Amino acid sequence: MGARRETILETIQQYVDLVATGSSADVVALYADGATVEDPVGSEVRTTREQIAEFYGALDGLEQSARLLHTRIAGNEAAFAFELVTKAGEQTYTLAPIDVMTFDDDGRILSMRAFWSGEDMLVS
Amino acid sequence: MGARRETILETIQQYVDLVATGSSADVVALYADGATVEDPVGSEVRTTREQIAEFYGALDGLEQSARLLHTRIAGNEAAFAFELVTKAGEQTYTLAPIDVMTFDDDGRILSMRAFWSGEDMLVS
Repeated sequence: MGARRETILETIQQYVDLVATGSSADVVALYADGATVEDPVGSEVRTTREQIAEFYGALDGLEQSARLLHTRIAGNEAAFAFELVTKAGEQTYTLAPIDVMTFDDDGRILSMRAFWSGEDMLVS
Repeated sequence: MGARRETILETIQQYVDLVATGSSADVVALYADGATVEDPVGSEVRTTREQIAEFYGALDGLEQSARLLHTRIAGNEAAFAFELVTKAGEQTYTLAPIDVMTFDDDGRILSMRAFWSGEDMLVS
């Protein structure tokens, strides 16, 4: 029967909030067992919880903010654009990827693929 | 080596323009042989040129406008949000899906998956 639309929306909002201001462990907890992460699309797919934890661990301690821009849900899949702003010293890095996710029936993330490339990173 | 980023961007812009104001034959011509269309995600995948032509044929003769909102390209894949406005009599229907496409090395569309659901259709 699939996850409820509201549950998927909540997971996406939590994901965006936690990527910016949560711990990497909080982000990883949104993923189902056996989940995969491909960020950016075309890079090697991370397939273990350890690899996924290492990936998000790179964000720990950074000064970040994020906001959800546009979300579309179809069944147990979703695509959404969000903006992630990272301050590092005098520099501000802004990236607005489009992520595509699939979900299990409890609304946990089964797969994430992030569409972006180097040209999309704005530095100010 | 893959399609050039600029070529993919051109195809996406042409797609959005032609969906709104071109003929369905123009839209179908952007697809490679063997391409697939899943619109919305979760519906039956159209796998033949005839099925794809029939799908876009439903748009012929409608009064429409469209604009590209947000595009992200990664290798030979892309995700983009666009807004399609359809006027029918006194009603205006606005839908802003997120489409995910893969491309061949010439920038023709190999697959299209459109993320949206009925809740996203605005009627005014």
